[in-house]
Amino acid sequence: MAERIEAATAGPINLADYEALAAERLEPGVLDYYAGGAGDERTLRDNVDAFARRHLRPRVLVDVSEVSTSTTVLGAEISLPVLVAPTALQRLAHPDGEPGMARAAAAAGTIFTLSTLATSRPAEVAWHAPPAPRWFQLYAFRDTAVTRALCDEAVEHGFDAVVLTVDAPRAGRRERDLRSGFAVPPEVDMPAVRAALGAGACPTPAEFFSLVDTSLSWRALEELADDLPLPVVVKGIQTAQDAALACDHGAAAVVVSNHGGRQLDGVAASLDVLPEVVDAVGGRVEVLIDGGVRRGTDVAVALALGARAVLIGRPPLWGLAAAGEAGARHVLELLREELRLALLLLGCPSPAHVTRGHVS
Amino acid sequence: MAERIEAATAGPINLADYEALAAERLEPGVLDYYAGGAGDERTLRDNVDAFARRHLRPRVLVDVSEVSTSTTVLGAEISLPVLVAPTALQRLAHPDGEPGMARAAAAAGTIFTLSTLATSRPAEVAWHAPPAPRWFQLYAFRDTAVTRALCDEAVEHGFDAVVLTVDAPRAGRRERDLRSGFAVPPEVDMPAVRAALGAGACPTPAEFFSLVDTSLSWRALEELADDLPLPVVVKGIQTAQDAALACDHGAAAVVVSNHGGRQLDGVAASLDVLPEVVDAVGGRVEVLIDGGVRRGTDVAVALALGARAVLIGRPPLWGLAAAGEAGARHVLELLREELRLALLLLGCPSPAHVTRGHVS
Amino acid sequence: MAERIEAATAGPINLADYEALAAERLEPGVLDYYAGGAGDERTLRDNVDAFARRHLRPRVLVDVSEVSTSTTVLGAEISLPVLVAPTALQRLAHPDGEPGMARAAAAAGTIFTLSTLATSRPAEVAWHAPPAPRWFQLYAFRDTAVTRALCDEAVEHGFDAVVLTVDAPRAGRRERDLRSGFAVPPEVDMPAVRAALGAGACPTPAEFFSLVDTSLSWRALEELADDLPLPVVVKGIQTAQDAALACDHGAAAVVVSNHGGRQLDGVAASLDVLPEVVDAVGGRVEVLIDGGVRRGTDVAVALALGARAVLIGRPPLWGLAAAGEAGARHVLELLREELRLALLLLGCPSPAHVTRGHVS
Amino acid sequence: MAERIEAATAGPINLADYEALAAERLEPGVLDYYAGGAGDERTLRDNVDAFARRHLRPRVLVDVSEVSTSTTVLGAEISLPVLVAPTALQRLAHPDGEPGMARAAAAAGTIFTLSTLATSRPAEVAWHAPPAPRWFQLYAFRDTAVTRALCDEAVEHGFDAVVLTVDAPRAGRRERDLRSGFAVPPEVDMPAVRAALGAGACPTPAEFFSLVDTSLSWRALEELADDLPLPVVVKGIQTAQDAALACDHGAAAVVVSNHGGRQLDGVAASLDVLPEVVDAVGGRVEVLIDGGVRRGTDVAVALALGARAVLIGRPPLWGLAAAGEAGARHVLELLREELRLALLLLGCPSPAHVTRGHVS
Repeated sequence: MAERIEAATAGPINLADYEALAAERLEPGVLDYYAGGAGDERTLRDNVDAFARRHLRPRVLVDVSEVSTSTTVLGAEISLPVLVAPTALQRLAHPDGEPGMARAAAAAGTIFTLSTLATSRPAEVAWHAPPAPRWFQLYAFRDTAVTRALCDEAVEHGFDAVVLTVDAPRAGRRERDLRSGFAVPPEVDMPAVRAALGAGACPTPAEFFSLVDTSLSWRALEELADDLPLPVVVKGIQTAQDAALACDHGAAAVVVSNHGGRQLDGVAASLDVLPEVVDAVGGRVEVLIDGGVRRGTDVAVALALGARAVLIGRPPLWGLAAAGEAGARHVLELLREELRLALLLLGCPSPAHVTRGHVS
Repeated sequence: MAERIEAATAGPINLADYEALAAERLEPGVLDYYAGGAGDERTLRDNVDAFARRHLRPRVLVDVSEVSTSTTVLGAEISLPVLVAPTALQRLAHPDGEPGMARAAAAAGTIFTLSTLATSRPAEVAWHAPPAPRWFQLYAFRDTAVTRALCDEAVEHGFDAVVLTVDAPRAGRRERDLRSGFAVPPEVDMPAVRAALGAGACPTPAEFFSLVDTSLSWRALEELADDLPLPVVVKGIQTAQDAALACDHGAAAVVVSNHGGRQLDGVAASLDVLPEVVDAVGGRVEVLIDGGVRRGTDVAVALALGARAVLIGRPPLWGLAAAGEAGARHVLELLREELRLALLLLGCPSPAHVTRGHVS
Repeated sequence: MAERIEAATAGPINLADYEALAAERLEPGVLDYYAGGAGDERTLRDNVDAFARRHLRPRVLVDVSEVSTSTTVLGAEISLPVLVAPTALQRLAHPDGEPGMARAAAAAGTIFTLSTLATSRPAEVAWHAPPAPRWFQLYAFRDTAVTRALCDEAVEHGFDAVVLTVDAPRAGRRERDLRSGFAVPPEVDMPAVRAALGAGACPTPAEFFSLVDTSLSWRALEELADDLPLPVVVKGIQTAQDAALACDHGAAAVVVSNHGGRQLDGVAASLDVLPEVVDAVGGRVEVLIDGGVRRGTDVAVALALGARAVLIGRPPLWGLAAAGEAGARHVLELLREELRLALLLLGCPSPAHVTRGHVS
Repeated sequence: MAERIEAATAGPINLADYEALAAERLEPGVLDYYAGGAGDERTLRDNVDAFARRHLRPRVLVDVSEVSTSTTVLGAEISLPVLVAPTALQRLAHPDGEPGMARAAAAAGTIFTLSTLATSRPAEVAWHAPPAPRWFQLYAFRDTAVTRALCDEAVEHGFDAVVLTVDAPRAGRRERDLRSGFAVPPEVDMPAVRAALGAGACPTPAEFFSLVDTSLSWRALEELADDLPLPVVVKGIQTAQDAALACDHGAAAVVVSNHGGRQLDGVAASLDVLPEVVDAVGGRVEVLIDGGVRRGTDVAVALALGARAVLIGRPPLWGLAAAGEAGARHVLELLREELRLALLLLGCPSPAHVTRGHVS
């Protein structure tokens, strides 16, 4: 196994290589669960394609003898403006699971976001990964005690922010899963959810979403933000209007996201929505984005359009599937290497130097 | 057979699956008759593609704990804003024919539109399907007595509106039919037409269209609307100018339609024409649309652009071909399920909540 | 042979069918000579594609009980707004050659344009085809006596206009011909050219173009128009500026044309240039167009954008190749049938009723 | 061998043919080194595609009896507005190497640009090629003595300009090379670099780029321009802002270039950037362009958008690979032939007659 990992981490030279490796190694149903989107998967594809519709505008004869990829997000210093997005059930990709992913993110100097639907509890992640900025992704439950229990655990174990997902009051229609009959294997647990529910058995995904609060309102965001000792990041913003409302109701940051094309097919690519959100926010909070980032140049495009940083979901899963923690880390390091070169060739010594004028 | 139907209705998970099933089960000439369009079939394809050029704009943190797909059309309550469009010769698809389709629509809580070129008379449909709102599609004949006889039968048997087709004074050039030599089999009757004509034998399609009144004018619409005890829906509007004229001359509603791409190839997709029609109508009458709807998200796009509801022609025929009445009903239920989820994820508790701001 | 012709004329139902038949029957080098364009053949393809970028806007409830495809061009009545464009060496396609093509055009009630590079002299065409409006296409030679001799022969034999080609002071770079080594077979003559040159042998195409006057100016057009007893149509206009100059210097009509994509690759499709030419001409002369017309709906689009009529070059050659005179005539009749239906479905009783509002 | 060369130079009729020949003859790793671009090679492809998005606008009835492709660049007369761009390691393509390429350019009457990374020193090129205008491409080194030594040698051997590359402070990420493990073979030398460095062994490409000065500024350009007895051409401009700065800081000309898509993937095609650069320069210096030129019509498009001339990099390498010096020369002659015909058919007796109005 050690040999295979070494070969794998030596072999792939970009994220597409990791996607191919993951496709080889994952069981088909799991692969489709990770890879798939809702409906006809138009948005899934468009998230990626949108980056190719933008063009970088490099400036020359700028001193780039010192290039840094570092930035801050919510005040935390990170070594590259690429965070690990929350994705469910990481142990299905590799036994290293969420603790492995958390270690990979920490090693790369960036933030890991733990999903509510994780196969490890916050406590386990905190125990098995070194100290590092870490976020907890939250679904709001109809039973607010459940929501609260989840938040409490995250707070207790040192997580630094809560990422409230607002684009999934119900799961999207993911037809690959309908066709494959994808189900969480009985031996895989979602312990945080199970504990918060006080349930004996882990809920199925269908059961899970029936517990999510479909009546959640902006007022609920405000209350959550007031009650929690952590900043609340609102994930799933797709319009200028909602971006402004998020600012008005206590969000510490917003994530432009369509849930990786997994919720409502036919929505615009995240990148295409980013400019209107940045304009609407007007600097009041930080704007993040996920969806379709596959290259360091994509990160640069997002920065130029006003994102503070990007989140990546599937690529670190590909790394995890290909070679566990080491694979996930290599994915992050590849992006850092690509971004560093992109900044250098753009004439930008750091992410902070990337401006709207660097993209068209 | 029962087994096959059960398997079929269990198997397909979206309308494309039904299209594939229909392609397997229909005789090639009949398949081409249903599937084909005029000329190079540019408009046929563009009707579908136009939906992919639009993007939904979901709003978040809206209370969607109660989502209803219900609406009204011409005052009638229907459980989803998707009507069954008039399509000819449904018994060629399945022995259940128009009565089966009418039962499917009634079961789904929506409106069935009976074609003049149906293989069942209005009386037969009324007898074999439960009470439900039901429309009758009309071609205007040169002999106004024929037109009147058809209308009278529809009125007598409780139909609720007459849908006057205005885009087919003659049939389009459908080359698939020219190549296949498609003809209505001798054992298949179009009894309403035959009776109205007082003819012994059923006319061929060519004979049929030679009887349609190519001199029909807006004044004729006005007279029809005045004379009939039913509202007249004008189907086949493709410009703002004609939409305004329809309002001026007594139309109770207009249907933006290019006859499923079967009449004049090279016209714009229905969806691309919808905005100018909605603007021109200015709320005076309800605007419907047909052409290219294959997903619940497509319905949502049409609603957002101002349609009161959509009509679907080929998809319920695919259902009928695949599994008779049950198949047609499943097609409608799939669209309802998709639309319900689309509304929920758009932040719209009902069709009435979908606005122009929900699409770009 | 009679059988084959009957089968051929019965079989094909549109111009694409004739293109396929021609591809089967022509010798590869001749096929490529007719089919090919200059350079990378971008313009060749774009001429056709441009029609698919436009959309017809049908008006309904217009009295179309009488639909006529007739119009006039330069005062001559023709039964459809589709002329036969000048194309070289028609006897290579079929022994019927230019006389057969002229008979086909006359039978269809439209204008045949004889190329300078024809395999029949004007006299032969006049002798072997019934009286009908007929045009003569002219290359201007450095030796004006040659030009004059050609014109005199056209005048003498009753031709009604001279079509001066202005986009070919030299032949375009047609790489298919370079690769095939295409050459006019020794037994094929271009008698008008040979006679006008006073040469014993027919010039090769390379020799021919070395005789064309590359210094021709607008003043030369004016002199030609003054001297000739026939109207001069200027073919090969691709800009508003040149369209205006043509009007100023005596043109009786202009043809928007890029020589079927055979001269300068990379120029815009003829259809895309048509609107600016129509605007620049401002009704002073008639505007014609060639390039890419394959359907009756294409003719309607050109009319809507302001063309008086269209010319077709390759399609009648396909007909000629497939079935001689009868094939060429069938091509024209297919277009008439398609155009008639297009006018009817557009709500236009005649070409004169087609307006700018019928296209978008 | 003589036979093969003759066949090769007789066979190919356009640059694409030479590309195919080169692909056959080059060792795969070398082929990929020449053909490849950075990242996903979007910009590599877009450089070519951008020309197809423009359309030429030919003017007719202009006297084109005398057409010349001649122009001047930096005051030097050249027989066609196509220069040979600097490309590295030409001896890998063919033993004729840079001296052969220089002879081909001289024979074609145009300028050869010698790369810093050449396999021949300036002295060798000057010795083995006839007198002709010749440029030297320069990377600026951290050790300014190295930079100076390279410039001195170019000056000493009669080069006429220095082309300062500003888009490559570090090499782009060329994944073909990463996969092939491309390395300069030990027997291939880069003597100018080695001598300037005073190194015993030739640096690897990685070593080479570690010596380039990443802190170079506009002030450094100004100093170089002041110090050198030659004009300095700045190559790698991609924005209006940098074009203006280049003018302000002593550039004698700018080259709009993205280094053939080899540096930062995702930047706009060179042609798409040309207009803003031309506008920003406002005639103060000459504007050149490289990237994607494959046809004489492409040259015409660039001229129409304001370029004084174009540079071609890969095409003469294909010629060199296919048939040595003769192949490179044939590539230039093919472009001249195509350009001459393009000018004639555009109604432009010379490059100076091509205006903004000749393209859309």
